[in-house]
Amino acid sequence: MIKVGVVGGTGYTGVELLRLLAAHPQVDLRAVTSRGEAGRHLADLFPNLRGHVDLVFTHPDESDLPGCDLVFFATPNGTAMQLVPDLLAAGVKVIDLAADFRLRDPAAWEHWYGMPHACPELLAEAVYGLPEVNREAVRGARLVANPGCYPTAVQLGFLPLLEQGLVEPGNLIADTKSGVSGAGRKAAVGTLLAEASENMKAYGVAGHRHQPEIRQGLRAATQQPVELTFVPHLTPMIRGIHATLYARLTGAAADLQSLFEQRYADEPFVDVMPLGAHPETRSVRGANHCRLAVHHPRGGQTVVVLSVIDNLVKGAAGQAVQNMNLMFGLDETTGLGAAALLP
Amino acid sequence: MIKVGVVGGTGYTGVELLRLLAAHPQVDLRAVTSRGEAGRHLADLFPNLRGHVDLVFTHPDESDLPGCDLVFFATPNGTAMQLVPDLLAAGVKVIDLAADFRLRDPAAWEHWYGMPHACPELLAEAVYGLPEVNREAVRGARLVANPGCYPTAVQLGFLPLLEQGLVEPGNLIADTKSGVSGAGRKAAVGTLLAEASENMKAYGVAGHRHQPEIRQGLRAATQQPVELTFVPHLTPMIRGIHATLYARLTGAAADLQSLFEQRYADEPFVDVMPLGAHPETRSVRGANHCRLAVHHPRGGQTVVVLSVIDNLVKGAAGQAVQNMNLMFGLDETTGLGAAALLP
Amino acid sequence: MIKVGVVGGTGYTGVELLRLLAAHPQVDLRAVTSRGEAGRHLADLFPNLRGHVDLVFTHPDESDLPGCDLVFFATPNGTAMQLVPDLLAAGVKVIDLAADFRLRDPAAWEHWYGMPHACPELLAEAVYGLPEVNREAVRGARLVANPGCYPTAVQLGFLPLLEQGLVEPGNLIADTKSGVSGAGRKAAVGTLLAEASENMKAYGVAGHRHQPEIRQGLRAATQQPVELTFVPHLTPMIRGIHATLYARLTGAAADLQSLFEQRYADEPFVDVMPLGAHPETRSVRGANHCRLAVHHPRGGQTVVVLSVIDNLVKGAAGQAVQNMNLMFGLDETTGLGAAALLP
Amino acid sequence: MIKVGVVGGTGYTGVELLRLLAAHPQVDLRAVTSRGEAGRHLADLFPNLRGHVDLVFTHPDESDLPGCDLVFFATPNGTAMQLVPDLLAAGVKVIDLAADFRLRDPAAWEHWYGMPHACPELLAEAVYGLPEVNREAVRGARLVANPGCYPTAVQLGFLPLLEQGLVEPGNLIADTKSGVSGAGRKAAVGTLLAEASENMKAYGVAGHRHQPEIRQGLRAATQQPVELTFVPHLTPMIRGIHATLYARLTGAAADLQSLFEQRYADEPFVDVMPLGAHPETRSVRGANHCRLAVHHPRGGQTVVVLSVIDNLVKGAAGQAVQNMNLMFGLDETTGLGAAALLP
Repeated sequence: MIKVGVVGGTGYTGVELLRLLAAHPQVDLRAVTSRGEAGRHLADLFPNLRGHVDLVFTHPDESDLPGCDLVFFATPNGTAMQLVPDLLAAGVKVIDLAADFRLRDPAAWEHWYGMPHACPELLAEAVYGLPEVNREAVRGARLVANPGCYPTAVQLGFLPLLEQGLVEPGNLIADTKSGVSGAGRKAAVGTLLAEASENMKAYGVAGHRHQPEIRQGLRAATQQPVELTFVPHLTPMIRGIHATLYARLTGAAADLQSLFEQRYADEPFVDVMPLGAHPETRSVRGANHCRLAVHHPRGGQTVVVLSVIDNLVKGAAGQAVQNMNLMFGLDETTGLGAAALLP
Repeated sequence: MIKVGVVGGTGYTGVELLRLLAAHPQVDLRAVTSRGEAGRHLADLFPNLRGHVDLVFTHPDESDLPGCDLVFFATPNGTAMQLVPDLLAAGVKVIDLAADFRLRDPAAWEHWYGMPHACPELLAEAVYGLPEVNREAVRGARLVANPGCYPTAVQLGFLPLLEQGLVEPGNLIADTKSGVSGAGRKAAVGTLLAEASENMKAYGVAGHRHQPEIRQGLRAATQQPVELTFVPHLTPMIRGIHATLYARLTGAAADLQSLFEQRYADEPFVDVMPLGAHPETRSVRGANHCRLAVHHPRGGQTVVVLSVIDNLVKGAAGQAVQNMNLMFGLDETTGLGAAALLP
Repeated sequence: MIKVGVVGGTGYTGVELLRLLAAHPQVDLRAVTSRGEAGRHLADLFPNLRGHVDLVFTHPDESDLPGCDLVFFATPNGTAMQLVPDLLAAGVKVIDLAADFRLRDPAAWEHWYGMPHACPELLAEAVYGLPEVNREAVRGARLVANPGCYPTAVQLGFLPLLEQGLVEPGNLIADTKSGVSGAGRKAAVGTLLAEASENMKAYGVAGHRHQPEIRQGLRAATQQPVELTFVPHLTPMIRGIHATLYARLTGAAADLQSLFEQRYADEPFVDVMPLGAHPETRSVRGANHCRLAVHHPRGGQTVVVLSVIDNLVKGAAGQAVQNMNLMFGLDETTGLGAAALLP
Repeated sequence: MIKVGVVGGTGYTGVELLRLLAAHPQVDLRAVTSRGEAGRHLADLFPNLRGHVDLVFTHPDESDLPGCDLVFFATPNGTAMQLVPDLLAAGVKVIDLAADFRLRDPAAWEHWYGMPHACPELLAEAVYGLPEVNREAVRGARLVANPGCYPTAVQLGFLPLLEQGLVEPGNLIADTKSGVSGAGRKAAVGTLLAEASENMKAYGVAGHRHQPEIRQGLRAATQQPVELTFVPHLTPMIRGIHATLYARLTGAAADLQSLFEQRYADEPFVDVMPLGAHPETRSVRGANHCRLAVHHPRGGQTVVVLSVIDNLVKGAAGQAVQNMNLMFGLDETTGLGAAALLP
């Protein structure tokens, strides 16, 4: 059994992580910490956990995090980096679901996240936890930076094309649509039901923190400079990301369907849909899958890839559990076998 | 392993049943039949099952249903009663998720369902599959009538009060709110998103088929005539039933909280919430739980019970699996351990 | 032209009031005040008003409210009572959309609203602005207390029965369902889309401020003590209230349909639906109508009334404009002629 | 007063048209025809019209359509073309809200709509009713082809760029998101609330009928061949289209904000939002406006235009009324002055 601690755990990625850990056969959940909710039962905050998790939030300073084998951070950006060095020094492995260790370039991180980094020397060591790219590195990692939700959906969709050099890396477009849970469980007018329901809007067109994260991943795949126009949209639903990706072919079209099928043939959580399919976000609701379809409309120069995930599962907590399984030598799918909830 | 067949399976209770059966460790799913979809992969109809159920819909006449240990019917009302006698004769156990065997009185059944009953002699044998009332009978049953969604939520809320004779059985009110999946997966204008979203309406105030089913169950509990005003409402969400129940105390109020807690102390799927709680339907989304709260506003004569279930789980497919577990001597909770999906 | 000021105006009743006033042919909108948003264009906060209202929020101290003929308060409870005495003294008429003047009993007001009342002497003068009851008094009023949303829907449904003494006033039940806009435009976790969508829950079963307001109105109609069990529910939609009302007949049933039709025959904004109808909240979305249906299920002792309004229109801003029309001698329907937006 | 008839009127564009016509001060609504609903009150089908439209659906053969000044067709594709020649011959003007007269090339029309055209000779005469392009032609037209919903949002967004030759016409991308009402009021599984809510999906990536309509319009603006990748998405909301448009600059960026502001300076229904804005679909709910924002992310080669409309208003019925106003010499905004309903 893996002794696990969770720092934070009062947000949506937190409750989803707790739901998955509660059902994981190899996890011994030792502590869930929260400064704000210390002393409160988890099930009071998240009634779905009643009968499943019998724990009380504890203050991080009074929790035996150093005695854990693994600590997940489901905290706001900037928190994990304060605590990770000591945990690593104590021999604890860490998976950070926030963004503290996602960018390798400290200057870029500080630019996009607006604060100095507390341990920039760890950025080079941290493994970017996209198993479909970095599986072996994750297996050996002490510190995993769990990818962002948009970056997961976008990279999995673009990678087969870029790895094979089939499209222009200098003219990529990712039009992405996210459910509102992506904005987190915090009081805010803009994500009230009365504001965000029956409404569709783009945001962050001028710049979004996930853009450099995606570019970093795509650049590694293609070894060339990447230009990406990234437009996220707030969609009136709770869960789900739909990424619609556009790229320009550099030459005659290959058999794109086979390309995608082969690239992900051995991936347990990437499902290449049949030719002509339109994947739906609900087909992955609550599940750790990414479903993809590749289209080549009217034989033109533009390729369209459709990529869907549950932002809280493959886009956050599920991928974190997948990384944990790899780090501890378990079957990668342990505890992640549930089918999506549909309807 | 229990050899299981499913007749029907193209509706919402069907897909939910398949999701649960696919994850059940003791089930060998042999056949899923559909006249209309014969030859089609289940996963084509229900993309959430891709990678989880590798089966093709078969025509019922070409399926080895008699070779199964158990057959579930997830069919429209009036279908199961045509096939059940032969299956029982072949030694197959049956759980009907439709209404064919829910009412013990053939005349009442024919009145409410508008057709003659094909095997009225089985109505007396069929066990009404509400384990919280009929657990032992379910264990020994050949034929289980799985309760309706509203009847499950309403009976579980009223039973503690009626069993103890604390409220007037002649003046019960059940104001119930259901998600739209309760109307089934069939093309209809009234349940289009553009009609049913951003809208709330009552329906069937003059009469609803679940009313006699509820009365039958409550009458058995109280041994007195029961009068129930039952008003269902179509609610703009996919899943969930919220039953708000009103009853008049016959005398001084007992300790209602303790009453409920004791009544359901040993029930794995009924959760009596703390005093003053307001259970939310999302707290049981995808889970087999019923969560209850009992209120006694301002110490008056009226008791209010709040009861929530997922109409497709405890109100249909989950309860059916719970009944299967009982019929086959398994732990009652096998395959039903998942926490609700929240948010 | 009526010179109109609006105090507050940054919430949902505020923006709805501004939408209606912008289209009102007899209104000269002079000032919209907000301490928090002073200096900002209204259309920046409410993009639907771009091109319709060309005004800037001003600080109340710098606004010529005393120069107005009428001032609406669309403020939190407890604000209007601070400013109303001076405005009345200056000859300005006032309509308060909050609760400051709704209860006639100062002690009851202070109990339910948790603060001392700043001008209890005005409670007796204030006219409760439900035109279907108090039309003549509104015409002559200086100060109108605009009714709450639930109280409007519930009173209009119960009044015909109570005025004629047909039902027991000591056993009334109002099961009410409200869209989330009823909770206001303020940052709060509980009304985030990710919390309130795909969810149904009751709240405030132990006590809600609208309960005494309703009881006050019903007692005036029946001249007898009234007992009301009031259970509000948060419904996953933006706008709309559906009140489902239950009452016990005192004798043989009268012709309830005719009773309702006659009671509201001359009311421009109360629509008694045909026998057997189930009014939908969307049928009044954006409109100032209340639609009612009265049912007598299976000829029993219980009467069921279904009552729907738009909580922001007939339940707030629309009714306020209706009261303004009465106070200034205009046709009562001026500026309120729009049909509901459906779908 | 304009004598107006409506053919069809049982769908969503129909009810929206009736709502607008009922409030239009210059319209005398004479007949609303429907084969399927003949004899039924409009208000029975559309309860929002109770008290606003006191008409009965009539059979088209028994309706005095030739006695009207103007007939709107709110019918399925292929219906208007059967009746229009006779009406024109009788001196009646026609606005077709369906697609029968939108494409000028009969062969293209027959290819995309899968049937022979009944009066191809009228395609050249029909005026494409996008007033922002064809205002003068609409004023003189007998027959107006009302644009599709997607084509309205997409063309208004691309036109300023293409008319000035600022972007490559051979590499345009329109990623569009539509509310479910765009699929019409017809019984279908795919648009049930239980299917389409909490879900996002693309559709028709291989080809969509609105693609040639958009290309025709853009080609006219740029006088060059146009290549457009068009990907529509079904979005979990009732109303609204959000078009996110991508184009490649041909040279150094001009002042795009000024370009858009000047292009639409005199347009009553096109609102260019301030620099950096993200228009929301709810800001035009129920209103005839298109709101636009133009972005130039990080000074790169890609321009992003955000364009929102209400698909049933500016994308259908509202634009039809706008065209009617032009055809009959009225102020273009008559009857279209309402602000959007928000929240």
